[in-house]
Amino acid sequence: MPAAKREQAFAIAVVLLGTGVVGGAFLKLLNTPAAASLHLVGAANSRRQQTEPAKLAERNLREQLKSTGAQRDDAVLLAALAASDAATKVIVDATASTALAARHAEWLAQGYHVVTANKSLGGGELPGWRTLQAALANGARYGDSATVGAGLPVLSTLRRLRQCGDALLTLEGVFSGSLSYLFNGYDGSRPFSALLREARERGYTEPDPRADLSGEDVARKLLIIARNAGFALGWDEVQVESLVPEPLRAIDTGEFLARLEELDEPLATLHAEAKARGNVLRFLARLNQRGHARVGLVEVPAEHPAARLYGTDNQFALTTTRYHTQPLVIQGPGAGPEVTAQALLGDVLALG
Amino acid sequence: MPAAKREQAFAIAVVLLGTGVVGGAFLKLLNTPAAASLHLVGAANSRRQQTEPAKLAERNLREQLKSTGAQRDDAVLLAALAASDAATKVIVDATASTALAARHAEWLAQGYHVVTANKSLGGGELPGWRTLQAALANGARYGDSATVGAGLPVLSTLRRLRQCGDALLTLEGVFSGSLSYLFNGYDGSRPFSALLREARERGYTEPDPRADLSGEDVARKLLIIARNAGFALGWDEVQVESLVPEPLRAIDTGEFLARLEELDEPLATLHAEAKARGNVLRFLARLNQRGHARVGLVEVPAEHPAARLYGTDNQFALTTTRYHTQPLVIQGPGAGPEVTAQALLGDVLALG
Ligand SMILES: NC(=O)c1ccc[n+]([C@@H]2O[C@H](COP(=O)([O-])OP(=O)(O)OC[C@H]3O[C@@H](n4cnc5c(N)ncnc54)[C@H](OP(=O)(O)O)[C@@H]3O)[C@@H](O)[C@H]2O)c1
Ligand SMILES: NC(=O)c1ccc[n+]([C@@H]2O[C@H](COP(=O)([O-])OP(=O)(O)OC[C@H]3O[C@@H](n4cnc5c(N)ncnc54)[C@H](OP(=O)(O)O)[C@@H]3O)[C@@H](O)[C@H]2O)c1
Repeated sequence: MPAAKREQAFAIAVVLLGTGVVGGAFLKLLNTPAAASLHLVGAANSRRQQTEPAKLAERNLREQLKSTGAQRDDAVLLAALAASDAATKVIVDATASTALAARHAEWLAQGYHVVTANKSLGGGELPGWRTLQAALANGARYGDSATVGAGLPVLSTLRRLRQCGDALLTLEGVFSGSLSYLFNGYDGSRPFSALLREARERGYTEPDPRADLSGEDVARKLLIIARNAGFALGWDEVQVESLVPEPLRAIDTGEFLARLEELDEPLATLHAEAKARGNVLRFLARLNQRGHARVGLVEVPAEHPAARLYGTDNQFALTTTRYHTQPLVIQGPGAGPEVTAQALLGDVLALG
Repeated sequence: MPAAKREQAFAIAVVLLGTGVVGGAFLKLLNTPAAASLHLVGAANSRRQQTEPAKLAERNLREQLKSTGAQRDDAVLLAALAASDAATKVIVDATASTALAARHAEWLAQGYHVVTANKSLGGGELPGWRTLQAALANGARYGDSATVGAGLPVLSTLRRLRQCGDALLTLEGVFSGSLSYLFNGYDGSRPFSALLREARERGYTEPDPRADLSGEDVARKLLIIARNAGFALGWDEVQVESLVPEPLRAIDTGEFLARLEELDEPLATLHAEAKARGNVLRFLARLNQRGHARVGLVEVPAEHPAARLYGTDNQFALTTTRYHTQPLVIQGPGAGPEVTAQALLGDVLALG
């Protein structure tokens, strides 16, 4: 291959942070033709990292990192990126680390692009979001498609509409695959706890299901969308109604799993009441025209778009100045390693 | 305003072809802040055109064109575009003219960008599509968001997935607002012709409803999506089942409208049969894994996504290599002057 061609083939240098479920799937995508222009110059998990080209090229990099590799040191990873002669240099954050997210703006200011599945900055405290906006105002680019709906075209659509002068009026939807599954399936015939145990066994919930039931992850996604729609909301401005009863919040995971039945009665009552009115229960995220953001269990009529969801599907219904009689709805798998990694790749390729 | 700023403000020179429903809405958008970087240098309807700056700046340009303006001459419009010192030069096609569409590739080859609501090239005969592909291979850019779903993010999503190595397996949906309205509402309680008359009065169908009922417009959209997914289908490779009975196809509009009742019996029978099986009728466009494309009336079960549509909503369900257990669904208003014009503006701004 002539030199010019080779250089073009590796137009984008990438450092990958996190080699868990999503990071692992991203590494697999790196071996596909679609990622031919990407060149991995560094990879890290929480404890170790690798910047040696020969080691990075190995197929079992993810496993290797667990046993071999250097001590974690962001400076060394950034140096590897700086040393690359690629035209575009990207840090891909596939962790859930708040500490790493807090550095995104700094990296952008240094001229690197950031592509992230990590919601901690966009869906975190307001000062962090403002730092990010300041960096973006200086022309940096931030790929965050993976943070909402695992790459369903929600943020891109919202941004395009805004660019055309359209404005988000209301937003409503089901932003969690596990909560979608639980309430699409909960018909009163079995206790909620039984359904939850089954969902957990199938891998639809986090190992500690309170991570899903608390509504925190949904709130982060709602914040990211709301902020991208022009509502600079603080973390404490989202009203989150957790499904976890107060007494079960501070106990350890084992004890929580042993006491799941305590969820059953209150939910059975809500369900029966809804059913008597011909309605169903859905765990919704909602933003209204005044920027009021709420996350929690809602009774909706059978004609409501969320009432007609299946499986673990996510749903995002956007009502805007121009989509006002009926919302623009985007629906589908909103989690999963492969689609999330693909969202990261799509954002990286969009930079090239 | 300093000269540099002014130049930046008019970074995109635009010639608008067609000042009908969509073109008129586009002219309105030109007066909004979102279009501040656009500069109209020419506008035309089927008989007249305008390239004089003072006349183009008038608010009632659309009406003016009907009475004043020069004879239609594409060369003069192109000269106005060539004379502009804008960095980006775009022809916006808001007509349904096959003759104009046949010139898109030529314009692209001349270095102009084309943004279109006109489906005649992308959804027309295969040789035209191939000419377009040749122009695009040379780096030209073609904005076609408005041709499918009036700008619902269908084509952009499909292209992004393909860029990431994902492949469309199947596509299914309701691509026509009028046919969506007719079959969402047809429950057997009233004759189909009564519903159709009402839809026509509300402006949901074309003046001659056969333009909708024939399925041709749906077939064009299916072709555009299929081709963008890598299936280079010819116009005659889409199997279109028209809802217009043979004897009603060649008569004039007035006579057709007087004989609408002839549609009733066959549809009533199909509906009753579907209902007996707990199913509903939907006018679907479908592409299967082997690239087989069909457009026509289908009986679908109540759980089918299309069974749960409302009003005039369009729906596009994409099953891909990576979205395989559940499809990625995009749904919402797929017609209307304002959203279609916004799709044109979005494509123009993306060029800037
Ligand atoms: N899974 C999904 O479907 C999905 C969808 C959309 C978004 N996301 C988001 O994507 C992110 C990753 O999710 P996941 O499911 O892949 O989680 P995961 O399997 O727990 O993986 C997290 C990875 O981050 C690494 N990590 C933690 N702190 C780090 C640090 N300071 N430096 C470098 N690496 C560090 C971990 O290292 P160790 O291996 O050493 O623990 C692990 O490899 C999360 O923010 C999640 O919310 C996930
Ligand atoms: N309406 C929608 O919701 C919608 C949505 C998506 C896509 N589209 C597509 O958008 C296009 C326009 O639709 P529309 O509803 O705006 O149609 P329309 O109201 O009939 O307007 C068509 C316009 O094109 C002009 N025209 C025809 N031939 C021309 C030529 N050779 N040069 C310049 N102008 C010419 C007509 O001129 P005169 O005024 O002289 O007749 C008229 O102004 C169509 O291709 C349609 O399929 C429409």
